[in-house]
Amino acid sequence: MGTRLGDLVERFGGHLTGDPDIEVTGIAPLQDAGASQISFLSNSKLRALAAQSNAAALILSPLDDPTVAATYAGARIVTSNPYAYFARAAQYFVALDAVVPEPGVHPSAVVARGAQVDPSAHIGPHATVEEGAVIKAGAVIDAGCYIGREAEIGEGTHLFANVTFHSRCIIGKRGVIQSGAVIGADGFGFANEKGVYIKIPQTGRVVIGDDVEIGANTSVDRGALADTVIEEGVKLDNQIQIGHNCHIGAHTAMAGCVGVAGSARIGKHCTFGGAAMVLGHLEIADNVHISSGTMVSRSVLEAGQYTGFYPLAKNAEWEKSAAIVRNLASMREKIRTLEKTIKKLTEDK
Amino acid sequence: MGTRLGDLVERFGGHLTGDPDIEVTGIAPLQDAGASQISFLSNSKLRALAAQSNAAALILSPLDDPTVAATYAGARIVTSNPYAYFARAAQYFVALDAVVPEPGVHPSAVVARGAQVDPSAHIGPHATVEEGAVIKAGAVIDAGCYIGREAEIGEGTHLFANVTFHSRCIIGKRGVIQSGAVIGADGFGFANEKGVYIKIPQTGRVVIGDDVEIGANTSVDRGALADTVIEEGVKLDNQIQIGHNCHIGAHTAMAGCVGVAGSARIGKHCTFGGAAMVLGHLEIADNVHISSGTMVSRSVLEAGQYTGFYPLAKNAEWEKSAAIVRNLASMREKIRTLEKTIKKLTEDK
Amino acid sequence: MGTRLGDLVERFGGHLTGDPDIEVTGIAPLQDAGASQISFLSNSKLRALAAQSNAAALILSPLDDPTVAATYAGARIVTSNPYAYFARAAQYFVALDAVVPEPGVHPSAVVARGAQVDPSAHIGPHATVEEGAVIKAGAVIDAGCYIGREAEIGEGTHLFANVTFHSRCIIGKRGVIQSGAVIGADGFGFANEKGVYIKIPQTGRVVIGDDVEIGANTSVDRGALADTVIEEGVKLDNQIQIGHNCHIGAHTAMAGCVGVAGSARIGKHCTFGGAAMVLGHLEIADNVHISSGTMVSRSVLEAGQYTGFYPLAKNAEWEKSAAIVRNLASMREKIRTLEKTIKKLTEDK
Repeated sequence: MGTRLGDLVERFGGHLTGDPDIEVTGIAPLQDAGASQISFLSNSKLRALAAQSNAAALILSPLDDPTVAATYAGARIVTSNPYAYFARAAQYFVALDAVVPEPGVHPSAVVARGAQVDPSAHIGPHATVEEGAVIKAGAVIDAGCYIGREAEIGEGTHLFANVTFHSRCIIGKRGVIQSGAVIGADGFGFANEKGVYIKIPQTGRVVIGDDVEIGANTSVDRGALADTVIEEGVKLDNQIQIGHNCHIGAHTAMAGCVGVAGSARIGKHCTFGGAAMVLGHLEIADNVHISSGTMVSRSVLEAGQYTGFYPLAKNAEWEKSAAIVRNLASMREKIRTLEKTIKKLTEDK
Repeated sequence: MGTRLGDLVERFGGHLTGDPDIEVTGIAPLQDAGASQISFLSNSKLRALAAQSNAAALILSPLDDPTVAATYAGARIVTSNPYAYFARAAQYFVALDAVVPEPGVHPSAVVARGAQVDPSAHIGPHATVEEGAVIKAGAVIDAGCYIGREAEIGEGTHLFANVTFHSRCIIGKRGVIQSGAVIGADGFGFANEKGVYIKIPQTGRVVIGDDVEIGANTSVDRGALADTVIEEGVKLDNQIQIGHNCHIGAHTAMAGCVGVAGSARIGKHCTFGGAAMVLGHLEIADNVHISSGTMVSRSVLEAGQYTGFYPLAKNAEWEKSAAIVRNLASMREKIRTLEKTIKKLTEDK
Repeated sequence: MGTRLGDLVERFGGHLTGDPDIEVTGIAPLQDAGASQISFLSNSKLRALAAQSNAAALILSPLDDPTVAATYAGARIVTSNPYAYFARAAQYFVALDAVVPEPGVHPSAVVARGAQVDPSAHIGPHATVEEGAVIKAGAVIDAGCYIGREAEIGEGTHLFANVTFHSRCIIGKRGVIQSGAVIGADGFGFANEKGVYIKIPQTGRVVIGDDVEIGANTSVDRGALADTVIEEGVKLDNQIQIGHNCHIGAHTAMAGCVGVAGSARIGKHCTFGGAAMVLGHLEIADNVHISSGTMVSRSVLEAGQYTGFYPLAKNAEWEKSAAIVRNLASMREKIRTLEKTIKKLTEDK
C-alpha cells in the first residue's frame, strides 16, 4: 500500500515542489531509498548524499533546500523540522501495513469479573486483569501482561508482552510500555532497628500522564505514602530504575540504564544520558541536561549541561593517573610548600 | 477499619500519653495526618511540624517528646525508635485493609503432579510449578510466576507477578520477591579456547535465607559448582545483578542498580548505595558502607564508609578538569622539576 | 550414571595416563572431588592442591603434569587447555543427568495456526507463539515465553522461562536466552519538535547469530530502519542494555550491567567488564578490552586494554580528592605561576 505525495502534504503540512500524484510506499535512509520511497535530510552535513539520493521525494529544511535542489531531480517537501516530519510520516506508513490487534479478550486470558475492559481494547493470551482494573478504549494489553487490582490503562495505550502493572497505578492516553517493565513494585523502604530491617509498607501509587513511553525491563516503584509521578510526554529508555516518590517533569527523556533514587524531583524538558544516576531527595530544575555516566550527587537548580565521569585512557595511563588522584591532597601540599619557599626567596632578594 | 490506641500500644509497646480509647484508622505524614490518623517524628528537625500536626496521635522519641508536648495537644506514643514503630504500625494498618489472596491453585495455573503445594498457599493465574517443587504454608505465588523443578518457597513468602525462580533454588520464610526478578539463571561462565567461548554448566543453586526481599527486575545467578548464598535479612532493591557464587552476609542492604561480580564475598550489615559495583572474587568485611556510584576494585577488609565517583560539574568545567586528569602524570613531573629548581636556588644562596 | 575415562578421552581428546576403565560420575573442584569424580588444574598456582586431590583423575596441562605427577597417584588427562576440556566434560556429565524437555506443545500454550513448530521442539506452559513464527528442530521454549510474529528460533536454541522475543527477530543455532531477557523491543528513537517528542517507528529487527548466549533481564532493542546485529559466539551477561542498530562482532563478551547506546559498532573478540558503558555511534576495534565501570566516550580504534573509573578511597579521603579534582584548573594555574616566578628568579641571578 502507498500514498500520494499530495495526500501526505495535506496531512502533515510542508511545501511540496514536484508532482503531487507521485505514489510512495515508505521511508528509507538517503542512500537506501528507491524510486517509490521518500527520504529526509535532517543534518546539513549530508547535503551531498541527499543530492544524489534515488528517493522519489525528499523532506528537507528551507536552509538545505536551495543547495539540494540544484542537483536533486526528485520532488521536495520543505518544512521547518524535517526530522519531526519524518517521524510522523514514518508512523503513517507503518500504520498502513501494521497488523491491528483484534478487539476482545483472548480465551486464555484471565479477567476478573469486576474489571472493566472496553470492548475496543485487546487483551492477549495468558494476560491477567485483576478485580476493579479499568482498560480503556483501544488499549492493547499483549500476552502475559499482569494488570493489578484497580489499575487503570488509558485510551490507546499499548502494553507489550510480559509487562507487570501493579494495583491502583494509572497510565494515561497513547502510552507505550515495553516488555519486561514493572510499574508499581514496592519502593525500597525499611526502618533499621538494631541492625535488622523492618519493611515499611508502600501504599502510594505510580501515576503516569499521557503520551509517556517506558522502556524494556525498566522499573518504576510505587510511592511509600504519597505517589510516584511521571508527567506527560516523559520518555524512559530500557533498564531504568525510578525509586519511590520520584516526580519526573513533563517531556523529560532518560536514556538506558539511568537510575533515580527515591524522592528525587526532576524538572521538565530535562535529558539524562545513559547510566546517569541521581541520588535521593535531590531537586533538578527544568532544562537541565545530565551527561551519560554522571552521578548527580547534589541538587542542580540552574539549567545547563552537567557532567562528571572519569575520562577513558589506556589502562597503563589510567593506573598512573588514578594513583595520583588518590593522592591529590599531597600534591596540593607540595604546591603550597613551593609557593611559600618562593615567596621567601623573592622577599629575601 | 480502625484500631484503639490502647490496643496498638499493647501490641507494639511504647508509652502512651493520652486516651487509649481513641480510634485511629491509618498512618500519614506529619503535615497530612487528619484527626483519625496517627503520625510519627523520626527526625528532630521536624519538631515544629510535629507540634502543629492535626494527627490524633504522634509516635516520637523520649528526646523529642518534651518539646513537642509543650504545644501538641494530641496523644503521644513515646518509643526509642519511632521509625521502626511506624513501620510496624503501618504494616498492621495495611493488613487490616489488605485483600488476602485466597488459598488454592488458580484453574489456569499449571502445577506438576509431583509438586507439593501446601493447601494454605496461593498459586495465581498462569503460574507454572514444575515437578518436585515445594510451596510451603501461606506462600503466595502471583500470576505468571515460574517455579522450577525441586525449587522451594518458604512459609509466608510472597512472589509478585512474573517472577522466575529456577530449579533447585531455595528461599526461606517471610521473603518477598518483586515482579520481574530472576533467581537462579545460569551464571556467566565460559572457557575460552582459541577465541571461542565454551559454556561451563552452572550446576550450583541460589540459597536464600529468611526475611529477604529482592527487588523488581533484579537477577541473582545460580552458582557454577557451589551455591550462591544470600543470608537472612538481606534487602536488595531493583535492577541489581548478583553474579554466580557470591555470598552476601546477613542484614546487608543494596540500593538500585548495584552490580556484584561473581564470587564476591560480602559481610553482614553492609550497605551499598545505588549503582555501586563490586568486582569479582573480592572480599568485603562486615559493616562496610559503599557510597553510590562507587566501583569497588579491591577488597575492603576494614569497616567504614568508602567512596569513589567523579564529582559533578558544569560541562565546560568538567572538560577542563578531565583533560588535566588524563595528564596528571605530567603535572606531577612539573612539580618535581620545580622542587629541584628551588632546592638548587636555595642551596646556591 | 557415569562414564569410563577411556570413553571420555576418546570423545574429547587429551593424553591419558592411568587405567581407561576407571568409571567417573562427575566433575568437582580440586579440594572437593571424591574417588568417583574428576577434577582439573587450570591455574599453575594450584599445583600443590592438585597434588593432594582425592579425584579419580585430573585434567591438566603438559606444563603442570610433571610436578603434579610426582606426588599425585590418580589418573591424568594431559591437554593444552584444561579449562576448555573441563567445560566440555562438565557439559557431558550434566547432559547424562539432565531432564530432557519432552518434544511437543504444552496444552496451555497458545500457538497461532500459521506458526511452524518443529515436532522435536518443546513449547512450555503458558507460552505464546504468534502467527508466522518458526521454531526449529530441538528448540526449547520454556514456560511463559512470548515469540512474536514471524520471529525465528534456530535449531537447538533454548529460551528459559519468561523470555520475550519480538516479531521478525531471528536467533541462530545452539543459542541460549536466560529468563526475563527482552529481544526486539522498540529502540529509543524520537524527534523533538518544540520540546515534545514524536516517536520514530522502529522497524528494523534483531538478528542474532549461532552460539550466542544472552543473560537474564538483558534487553536488545530492534533497529530503527536497519537491523541490530549480534554476531556468532557473542556472550552477554545479565542486566545489559544494547541500543538500536548496534553491531556486536563475533565472540565478544560483556559482563553484567553493561550498556551500549544506539548505533555503536563493536569489533570481534572484545571484552567488556561489568557496568562498562559505550556511547552511541562509536566504533570499537577488534580485540579491545574495556575495564569494568569504564565510560567509553570516544571511538577506540586500536586493540588494547582501556580503563576509566574513579579510584575507591575512604570517604574522607575521597572528599578531599574530589574537591581538588573539581579545581584542577586552578591548581594548574598555580603551577604555571610558580614556573614563571622561578624562571624570573633564575634569570635574575
